[in-house]
Amino acid sequence: MKEEVKVLKGDICYSDKDRKLITVADGYLVYQGNQILGVYEALPIEYQGVPISDYTNKLIIPGLTDLHVHAPQYGFRGLQMDLELLEWLNTTTFVEEAKYQDLEYAKKAYTQFVNDLQKGGTTRACIFGTIHSEATKMLMELLDESGLVAYVGKVNMTRNSPDNLRETAEQSLRDTKQWVQEVGDKYTHVKPILTPRFIPSCDEETLHGLKAIQEEYKLPVQSHLSENRDEIRWVKELVPASTCYGDAYARTGLFGDEVPTIMAHCVYSTEEEIEMMKDRGVYVAHCPQSNTNLSSGIAPARLYLDKELKIGLGTDVAGGANLSIFRAMTDGIQVSKLYKVYVQPDQKPLTMEEAFYLGTYGGGSFFGKVGSFLPGFEMDALVLDESDIPHPQELTVKERLERFLYLSGDPGVKHKYVAGKQIR
Amino acid sequence: MKEEVKVLKGDICYSDKDRKLITVADGYLVYQGNQILGVYEALPIEYQGVPISDYTNKLIIPGLTDLHVHAPQYGFRGLQMDLELLEWLNTTTFVEEAKYQDLEYAKKAYTQFVNDLQKGGTTRACIFGTIHSEATKMLMELLDESGLVAYVGKVNMTRNSPDNLRETAEQSLRDTKQWVQEVGDKYTHVKPILTPRFIPSCDEETLHGLKAIQEEYKLPVQSHLSENRDEIRWVKELVPASTCYGDAYARTGLFGDEVPTIMAHCVYSTEEEIEMMKDRGVYVAHCPQSNTNLSSGIAPARLYLDKELKIGLGTDVAGGANLSIFRAMTDGIQVSKLYKVYVQPDQKPLTMEEAFYLGTYGGGSFFGKVGSFLPGFEMDALVLDESDIPHPQELTVKERLERFLYLSGDPGVKHKYVAGKQIR
Repeated sequence: MKEEVKVLKGDICYSDKDRKLITVADGYLVYQGNQILGVYEALPIEYQGVPISDYTNKLIIPGLTDLHVHAPQYGFRGLQMDLELLEWLNTTTFVEEAKYQDLEYAKKAYTQFVNDLQKGGTTRACIFGTIHSEATKMLMELLDESGLVAYVGKVNMTRNSPDNLRETAEQSLRDTKQWVQEVGDKYTHVKPILTPRFIPSCDEETLHGLKAIQEEYKLPVQSHLSENRDEIRWVKELVPASTCYGDAYARTGLFGDEVPTIMAHCVYSTEEEIEMMKDRGVYVAHCPQSNTNLSSGIAPARLYLDKELKIGLGTDVAGGANLSIFRAMTDGIQVSKLYKVYVQPDQKPLTMEEAFYLGTYGGGSFFGKVGSFLPGFEMDALVLDESDIPHPQELTVKERLERFLYLSGDPGVKHKYVAGKQIR
Repeated sequence: MKEEVKVLKGDICYSDKDRKLITVADGYLVYQGNQILGVYEALPIEYQGVPISDYTNKLIIPGLTDLHVHAPQYGFRGLQMDLELLEWLNTTTFVEEAKYQDLEYAKKAYTQFVNDLQKGGTTRACIFGTIHSEATKMLMELLDESGLVAYVGKVNMTRNSPDNLRETAEQSLRDTKQWVQEVGDKYTHVKPILTPRFIPSCDEETLHGLKAIQEEYKLPVQSHLSENRDEIRWVKELVPASTCYGDAYARTGLFGDEVPTIMAHCVYSTEEEIEMMKDRGVYVAHCPQSNTNLSSGIAPARLYLDKELKIGLGTDVAGGANLSIFRAMTDGIQVSKLYKVYVQPDQKPLTMEEAFYLGTYGGGSFFGKVGSFLPGFEMDALVLDESDIPHPQELTVKERLERFLYLSGDPGVKHKYVAGKQIR
């Protein structure tokens, strides 16, 4: 039985594959089940009579994808922001993540995370848990109940980590395999993703073992790459034979090719590393606020767009303080301007249209045909209310969208559709 | 008759003159009329029985000062952010400001601005109007009714401006003088400030004439300084004899000394200019978001603090999209980190304590003893509610404040006291 055709009516904005913003004032978004049929200025005759949700004067946009976020760090977002990456990991992050052995604490904290994620603009996310399988399963359970679509990873950490947050390679692989077997087909919307934390905290045996699990279960992979200069030097020390940080992953088979892979940050990727990412289809999760907060630097998002790398946005909570991909869009624009001023005068800043593309279509594509309203895309949509931002003049739909990105963000999300279902 | 002594009870945070954050959990802020008497862990015996406003579990902090904001640009905040300064001025700013000849439009737009300023964390502000005296008077009227304390300037523009937003020097000076005479003593909380827009839009005759008005009426001055490299080159062309941009003002007597002066931006101030500002007591209005949005650069706030210049924060709406000084604090921290990464590795980023100082005590001092809870300071205070930011762990008062800056901002302001009066 075919699902019912339905319509949302309002001021519709979405990106095409060339990152161009399309706006249709007072238009009709027609969908069937989880599939977009089209966007129309006037409702076509064949759809007359189908149920219409009337959001006249409200903006309707695709759902947002957060390509990189640490659920267990949500509890300390906006705290200890005066520290740099490696100090921050040791004094704050690892101390907090160790608490997730306690399932009661995990339930309290993950419930707060999932509730807030559900309220905001994010419809899909790629999420780091901790090394703890039980807490990670609980996080997946909560996410699945929320109606959001997510990849979630039990993290692997087998070296250079505190005693209470370190596994042996054997234990790490055994736990990971068991976790994958338990959760692989358990949820409708939430799936496992292999998650070696980063090279400094995963020894070779662990990475090779993860590759075997990857092949057996056909899983995607997420990790961190070239975030910070000290970290890059450290990786070179740990894997002296590697020609670049990305190569340290590639040597274990966990860097793209047949493996859908997301690498967060890519602030200081070398030319070689960039070419490897392009050739192997590795996604860049661009996390502008986190890279600023942790004094890492500015990732060359313009360069990645020009080279046609796969790229989307990440909040990287708690390196980023804000769980909002709207905020990541404007943060991305802002740091790209400073990149032009101080690093590469010939690299044009990101435009608002491009930043919007990154947070919708760009990141969404990791999940398939997601993040646009082109026919055949999955039905993820947000209804935005910006009537609380007063203005004295007439505004176009595009202008209202730009204001929304800079001034409203998550609190302005009124309704939310994910994979064809209204969840708010 | 002496005014009644009153008390606010809650979790109190304020800066001392050395920019150190003082926090008193579950403390008592005692004040009389518009004067702070002190902050206490336990209520002293002599104040037993005075009226207490009980804000237990809420943060209580000094009011915020916005040292630089353009009221007529509020209507297009968050729009056209893909443009740089000079293009943005010509295509967007000047077009909008010309509309303020129409008093009806001005009333609509200024009412929106004042309402939102009243709702947020700002208690004191230094505000640019337009060249239009009538609209500027209306803005002052609305501000005075709101209970906020402000300096407001009728802007002078006599060259390099569009026909519908340009005065002759004679007209500009006549209008300014008449405006000063009308508004000088008219309002309790709102006072005039001389406001030559910047050197490129003010000829020498105008600046010298403004100096005469300044001396006659003992008025403060606000303008822009060294925001953008193209602008600085242009100023040198316009005033070839000047040794730096600041010197172009100093030659007309409008750069500090006996004249309380605020200069917005100071992104590219030379060593000479910095020394002049220090010697003459010129305030820097540090506007980090605007400097980023307009691709200007990053002002060296750390250097200005080290040299003990007078400095506070400005939102510079609409160069900055957000009217919140809380946001300016975290923007200031964030850009200072990128400054360290890309410009001056030996300049430590701003800390959260320093950014908080800048938005309270630093900027407040332009208004006298304002922006702290030290005894003898004026009574400006905010009561903040961050109970909508869930967290799984115990937090200190300082941690709650840091989270508030990054995650809540203006929407979290629950109550507001300005110059001894509760206005929200």
